[in-house]
Amino acid sequence: MAKILAINAGSSTLKWKLFSVPEETVIASGMVDRLGLPDSVFVIKKADGTKYKETRPTIDAKEAAAMVLTRLKSDGILAHLSEITGIGHRVVAGGEHFRDSVIITPETLKEIKDLSEYAPLHNPTQAYYIEVFQSLLPKVVQVAVFDTSLFATMPKVNYLYSIPYEYYEKFGARKYGAHGTSHRYVANRTAEILGKPLDSLKLITLHLGSGASITAFDHGKAIDTSMGFTPLAGITMSTRSGDIDASLIPFLMRHLGISDVQDFIDILNHKSGLLGISGLSPDMRDLDKTKDSRERSELALEIFANRVVKYIGSYIAEMNGIDALIFTAGVGENSFAMRARILKQLSYFGVTVDDEKNHVHGKEQVISKDGEPVKVMVVPTNEELMIVRDVERLTAKSPVTD
Amino acid sequence: MAKILAINAGSSTLKWKLFSVPEETVIASGMVDRLGLPDSVFVIKKADGTKYKETRPTIDAKEAAAMVLTRLKSDGILAHLSEITGIGHRVVAGGEHFRDSVIITPETLKEIKDLSEYAPLHNPTQAYYIEVFQSLLPKVVQVAVFDTSLFATMPKVNYLYSIPYEYYEKFGARKYGAHGTSHRYVANRTAEILGKPLDSLKLITLHLGSGASITAFDHGKAIDTSMGFTPLAGITMSTRSGDIDASLIPFLMRHLGISDVQDFIDILNHKSGLLGISGLSPDMRDLDKTKDSRERSELALEIFANRVVKYIGSYIAEMNGIDALIFTAGVGENSFAMRARILKQLSYFGVTVDDEKNHVHGKEQVISKDGEPVKVMVVPTNEELMIVRDVERLTAKSPVTD
Repeated sequence: MAKILAINAGSSTLKWKLFSVPEETVIASGMVDRLGLPDSVFVIKKADGTKYKETRPTIDAKEAAAMVLTRLKSDGILAHLSEITGIGHRVVAGGEHFRDSVIITPETLKEIKDLSEYAPLHNPTQAYYIEVFQSLLPKVVQVAVFDTSLFATMPKVNYLYSIPYEYYEKFGARKYGAHGTSHRYVANRTAEILGKPLDSLKLITLHLGSGASITAFDHGKAIDTSMGFTPLAGITMSTRSGDIDASLIPFLMRHLGISDVQDFIDILNHKSGLLGISGLSPDMRDLDKTKDSRERSELALEIFANRVVKYIGSYIAEMNGIDALIFTAGVGENSFAMRARILKQLSYFGVTVDDEKNHVHGKEQVISKDGEPVKVMVVPTNEELMIVRDVERLTAKSPVTD
Repeated sequence: MAKILAINAGSSTLKWKLFSVPEETVIASGMVDRLGLPDSVFVIKKADGTKYKETRPTIDAKEAAAMVLTRLKSDGILAHLSEITGIGHRVVAGGEHFRDSVIITPETLKEIKDLSEYAPLHNPTQAYYIEVFQSLLPKVVQVAVFDTSLFATMPKVNYLYSIPYEYYEKFGARKYGAHGTSHRYVANRTAEILGKPLDSLKLITLHLGSGASITAFDHGKAIDTSMGFTPLAGITMSTRSGDIDASLIPFLMRHLGISDVQDFIDILNHKSGLLGISGLSPDMRDLDKTKDSRERSELALEIFANRVVKYIGSYIAEMNGIDALIFTAGVGENSFAMRARILKQLSYFGVTVDDEKNHVHGKEQVISKDGEPVKVMVVPTNEELMIVRDVERLTAKSPVTD
């Protein structure tokens, strides 16, 4: 049976899932966390629910990848590593050029490295893991699945900023978006659930996790998204500010005595959002618990909901209609309180919430009232499955010869 | 008969209108332009349409104010300067404290000066003109009418940014908005035209000039507006970018070799917007003329309309409904092409445009189709009249004793 490995590598973590195809079942998954630190952690979870965990000092990227493969064999999950027929890697920045996932070649790998300026914390690491797996499994085809490719084909009117046009032509200053793989999975799954072709629908997908973004799908095409040139823009996030007035930057740098603008952007990325407003926590569960006793916890929740409501309104306007609104990711899948808070503000659009159906955690469910014009749904995201499907699709088109 | 003078002073211009009250008729108006330059221009226009124009070298602020008063007498517009019973000054930044217009006292004048950091090009100049008129007409009550006071009472959820809360507490980093006097006039006038109390209506007022902003009035209260901490934020403007991803700033500074962030903010204020996208002109009329022959002229118009459409959608969502949509200011009052471009994208909300009625320039007119749920209107703005009414209202409350 063929197996495909989905890799999601960050600067300090290596997350992976091994799928059996074409059944699309997960036969093992795991994570190597705290890479390079004195207490690196290796975890593997099998399909039967059994877990293996090991703490070891300073596992590096190369070692982490090798440990995953060794363990897959030693635990009997794979009889031979040759069962792995493809590896799909999440890559954060795909620029304008990568409008779909691609098979890794020396040229595409170079392009991924060249795009590092657009995702300095991710692309170099992800390119490195591609090379590590090439050296460990040289015969296996690898595929890059970009967070941005869904948005590379947005209409120009939406991806351009109202700044001097040559900044787009010369430097690529445009909206690239993020979370594309998640939005794409959820939109496709929604069409399946509704039993309608995706290209007949107007959808708004709400990926609400610690990073959060909202995408408008008009007749199958992602036409707009709330994240921008980087994942800093858009709605309020756990620690990211979302949209602000750019004039605040010199004003606050002056008051805070900050001389390097990048230091202030770091504050907007890491100390803002729910954490900045509440002064307590970036985690919505902490704010929910304290919202009755702390004014600023409630305020952070209200601001989060408000920004989501406003983006929903702007995308309904932009599409001139809506068929379904879909919640996904940590908060979207699990916080019925936040879903209700958002949905109750949208009754004018025919958006409803059935309080009983809304009491759902992390499973597919329609949560709007029966017979209402706008379907509201929870659809848990599955970026790894989307990655695996892209590997299947691209390798079917272009079979490996060896 | 009592007369009230409305003053709108900028760094290089002094615009004024003299009203007769309570009739609210304009008996003269004028402008001193190119102040301090070798070719300063003094213009006065009487109610009968006659104009007087004089070019003189380097008129300064003090001289400009004195010339206005002298000319009002010498031209027989006023028999005595004592007919002037009040002067109202536009003041750009009112901070959090000024939630309404105020009578000028030594304390309020000091506060206006203290707010200069929020409007460095305007507040110092406007405070100076207040002092000049105090010296010229020491017995006349003067009133400051703030661009921002309408927005000082917005809900916290809308005026706060998702940044560390102490930046609001310590430095006043919040949304202040602008064009408040215009939005206030237009909203009040709309209620009169519709024959309904303002506090029964959900309105969206579109002040679309070379600066442009959109305000949501929910039951008489301005609850949100598109401009932010400064007038840079919001929709695309003639030369201002409106909303961008803050991360673009260090990225573009690096590519452009700019080291001072303020220099980049200047580009966002003066070289962006319609001018930046089109590469041709900040004036929508130039883009209209060239839209069929130049792709980037059409693109600039499309982006402008798109941002307006999205803000309208977001405010309909925020208010969970809408009764009327009102166009005002240069573009809003005069460009039926842009109005139609915007309105045709909003049919889902019950927004319509009657193409014949829409062919109107600068006069009050309902332009939506008869019997439709959302009224769409053109209402020419009149900030000076609003200033005069504030002078009347405040001086009636607190009569001058002398």
